[in-house]
Amino acid sequence: MAVFHAKRLIRFGHCDPAGIAYFPAYIDILVGVVEDFWTMLGHPWTDQLGRRHMGTPTAHLSCDFVRPSRHGDQLLFSLKAERLGSKSLTLVVDVTRAGELIWSAKQVLVAMDMKTGLSQPWPDDIRVALQGFIDTAE
Amino acid sequence: MAVFHAKRLIRFGHCDPAGIAYFPAYIDILVGVVEDFWTMLGHPWTDQLGRRHMGTPTAHLSCDFVRPSRHGDQLLFSLKAERLGSKSLTLVVDVTRAGELIWSAKQVLVAMDMKTGLSQPWPDDIRVALQGFIDTAE
Amino acid sequence: MAVFHAKRLIRFGHCDPAGIAYFPAYIDILVGVVEDFWTMLGHPWTDQLGRRHMGTPTAHLSCDFVRPSRHGDQLLFSLKAERLGSKSLTLVVDVTRAGELIWSAKQVLVAMDMKTGLSQPWPDDIRVALQGFIDTAE
Amino acid sequence: MAVFHAKRLIRFGHCDPAGIAYFPAYIDILVGVVEDFWTMLGHPWTDQLGRRHMGTPTAHLSCDFVRPSRHGDQLLFSLKAERLGSKSLTLVVDVTRAGELIWSAKQVLVAMDMKTGLSQPWPDDIRVALQGFIDTAE
Repeated sequence: MAVFHAKRLIRFGHCDPAGIAYFPAYIDILVGVVEDFWTMLGHPWTDQLGRRHMGTPTAHLSCDFVRPSRHGDQLLFSLKAERLGSKSLTLVVDVTRAGELIWSAKQVLVAMDMKTGLSQPWPDDIRVALQGFIDTAE
Repeated sequence: MAVFHAKRLIRFGHCDPAGIAYFPAYIDILVGVVEDFWTMLGHPWTDQLGRRHMGTPTAHLSCDFVRPSRHGDQLLFSLKAERLGSKSLTLVVDVTRAGELIWSAKQVLVAMDMKTGLSQPWPDDIRVALQGFIDTAE
Repeated sequence: MAVFHAKRLIRFGHCDPAGIAYFPAYIDILVGVVEDFWTMLGHPWTDQLGRRHMGTPTAHLSCDFVRPSRHGDQLLFSLKAERLGSKSLTLVVDVTRAGELIWSAKQVLVAMDMKTGLSQPWPDDIRVALQGFIDTAE
Repeated sequence: MAVFHAKRLIRFGHCDPAGIAYFPAYIDILVGVVEDFWTMLGHPWTDQLGRRHMGTPTAHLSCDFVRPSRHGDQLLFSLKAERLGSKSLTLVVDVTRAGELIWSAKQVLVAMDMKTGLSQPWPDDIRVALQGFIDTAE
């Protein structure tokens, strides 16, 4: 199973008065990493939204926050596609600092027709690209 | 079991180019609702952080996003304390619009000593206040 | 000249590791106050964007940050409309805590046709409402 | 005069229901660019805040938003230090897309002693580094 990696710096603006990363900021960063995953796959959100009138809203998110990260920390996001459904995609993401787990997430995305607001099957080319990512040995 | 209610307006700044609330903005709003819960309980975060040098970081969060909300929607957050551990608290929150479920969350908070970064038992007065909230008939 | 007042609480999530409000959070709060001003005026953004296909993007913003605010502070936003142009509106906002100036802003909004992306004259009813607000003795 | 350059992608999460970058998101991005400037200079905020107990809060910000940017746009931030005072620093930033001006900012930072909350002179090594940046031919 392939893994998509993305690095992110914990910035001043991500941190709270307790001096650690504010977890809602993590969720915003995660969305950006998932955005980069789609771009890497060859199906950027700009194309999905602009040309296909299709979105991938999040139906479920669960996170475990294992230890805090701090201003200046370099985090590595490692994303795997755990399950490809006909209309959904389950991503699992580990976030580490120097090999140590900081937090992890499971996120379920749903393919949605933006004109009707209803879920839809993945377009063939996107399904093939996702399956290819899943089948690729790391 | 008591329920803490808080209303929130979905603002322009909460919404994304798909025209619906951006889910990381929901998480930020949730933190504010939980902050108001602590204030209602008589133990505001300003006092916990400032006087007690204690925080309540989130160890776990899971969310189900059932249907989108839009700019201008009035959402009602209904928060229950599902379980009080010696060092943790599990909150469950339903977010509705005119009685219809928009999303729901389960959040586990941990009492933490900010000087050591280690979990700690709830101070007696906070434990009593939390237990009182749980035991109150709605 | 009338003044529109709005109260805002500085929340945990607005503050930075220096323990004071993060100024980009102020700007997001300001947008919400301006959104409430339009709603008070009877021309909410949801109606402007949804029915009129019109927006009011910001062309200019200048801010002076006089003293810091902290987690738990109650701020009062006092908004005046300083100048109504044929296609623009200049707002001035003072933000105070217990009568003491924390920061102030001048913001120039432009009426924009969202279909063309070009500026447009204020619709008559909006212009009348803005002029009425300006002419009202406080 | 030297120029510090930083590239930023306009992400889905930066954009509003009007489909363009939400300007408070720009301000948050700007803070990150200024953070990178200090790191490039050899005086990262983590060191300023952690070791020196010194901060650089913003006393003034003014922005002109010339044309909108959209989801997927690549923006180039070009930062110059316009004026170095004994306790302050004036930065000017142009933000362009393919050479076209999108927005510009002038930001005045003040050196602050975090223990007293009062302004302070720049430490010698920081002043020398800033002066060196200003004096460098591009």
